[in-house]
Amino acid sequence: MLKLVIGNKNYSSWSMRPWLALRANNIPFEEVFIPLYTDQADKDRILSFSKAGKVPTLIDGDVTVWDSLAIIEYLAERFPEAKLWPADRAARAHARAISAEMHSGFMPLRNECGMNLHRPIRAVALSDDARANVARIQDIWAECHARYGKQGPFLFGAFSAADAMYAPVVHRFRTYAIPVKAEAQHYVDAMMQLPAFQEWTRDGVAETLRIARFEDV
Amino acid sequence: MLKLVIGNKNYSSWSMRPWLALRANNIPFEEVFIPLYTDQADKDRILSFSKAGKVPTLIDGDVTVWDSLAIIEYLAERFPEAKLWPADRAARAHARAISAEMHSGFMPLRNECGMNLHRPIRAVALSDDARANVARIQDIWAECHARYGKQGPFLFGAFSAADAMYAPVVHRFRTYAIPVKAEAQHYVDAMMQLPAFQEWTRDGVAETLRIARFEDV
Ligand SMILES: N[C@@H](CCC(=O)N[C@@H](CS)C(=O)NCC(=O)O)C(=O)O
Ligand SMILES: N[C@@H](CCC(=O)N[C@@H](CS)C(=O)NCC(=O)O)C(=O)O
Repeated sequence: MLKLVIGNKNYSSWSMRPWLALRANNIPFEEVFIPLYTDQADKDRILSFSKAGKVPTLIDGDVTVWDSLAIIEYLAERFPEAKLWPADRAARAHARAISAEMHSGFMPLRNECGMNLHRPIRAVALSDDARANVARIQDIWAECHARYGKQGPFLFGAFSAADAMYAPVVHRFRTYAIPVKAEAQHYVDAMMQLPAFQEWTRDGVAETLRIARFEDV
Repeated sequence: MLKLVIGNKNYSSWSMRPWLALRANNIPFEEVFIPLYTDQADKDRILSFSKAGKVPTLIDGDVTVWDSLAIIEYLAERFPEAKLWPADRAARAHARAISAEMHSGFMPLRNECGMNLHRPIRAVALSDDARANVARIQDIWAECHARYGKQGPFLFGAFSAADAMYAPVVHRFRTYAIPVKAEAQHYVDAMMQLPAFQEWTRDGVAETLRIARFEDV
């Protein structure tokens, strides 16, 4: 059986992405939980799975894949029936572009609004760069809705890898009380109704571990 | 014909990656050059190709793909004969993992040792994080050499997408006089002999544009 090594569901947005890709498609896997930012013993456990020293990591027999996006590409090949990437060539290129944009970007938003599922909803003052990130993400969602909205409620109609990549942002917008424009709101609603998204969220909120530097933001 | 929008060859490590993937495989394309960090007119030109506002961007008829890694995935599908990803499933997963690790990581090294091809070779004091990046990259190269070295001089034997992703680091190590351990040196040598790498380097060094904040580092 596949093994997915993940960190705290409450905080680990990168872990959430491939987890959702698996669970939303009912692909069976074993979850290996390692609490983040505790002590060297836990860090060594992460390193025993991947020398990159980070979660998520996927283990499939003799294959080890680390990094959320590489895991998702691996799953897309391994489980073609899950249709993780859109079938249409242009839509697939678009989905990969926005997924890569998320994977390497939006640092200001990620730093200023870390995922923290149990955080009381409360607005914070955002930097100009973080506000530009918020606008860009909502433009991405709105453009997908305009192009593919007829095919379904997710970015490319049916749930895809791109949705796995953007899911944690839905939590950030919610927790930090960030206004969402009408053309993007439908997407927030669709994500919040996805059972796999709800399951992750429930598990995360139920965790009692606290990482001090991610609280009180 | 394919169009690749790129920035200054001297500085733009992200532009270099898909450019190399194309050129090393003799795939014909038109180069669209936009100087980086000049004025709003140039920024608007970048935005006219991609709303993400960055180079590189690839245009293939009605398909636009931005972001280096998404472009490389697109090229891998579009030109299967270029074998951008290794044919073996485990090797391909490994190649995607290290490519994604580069795409989203190594920020300290990227910030402290920006690519600048004409920079006089000179060591700088690196932060601990940047030194950890250097060690990790050399470990990645050494591990690939141990596993796939018999198949050829590149990370997975023949030139692949992973080499396109790591090529700019070869310049950083050279320009900032960063020592390379023996198990990784062979890779530096192979890259420096690649005609496409040499062509990009020649073009970059010949540029006369200077970006003040990337000089004197
Ligand atoms: N680019 C990686 C980022 C992974 C990452 O940064 N993971 C964090 C948790 S969300 C981590 O493992 N931190 C633990 C550590 O650095 O010790 C990916 O996409 O998977
Ligand atoms: N994640 C992107 C990063 C692209 C990027 O940061 N490009 C820089 C130049 S190397 C850029 O376009 N900067 C221009 C700007 O921000 O105005 C990729 O992999 O393509």
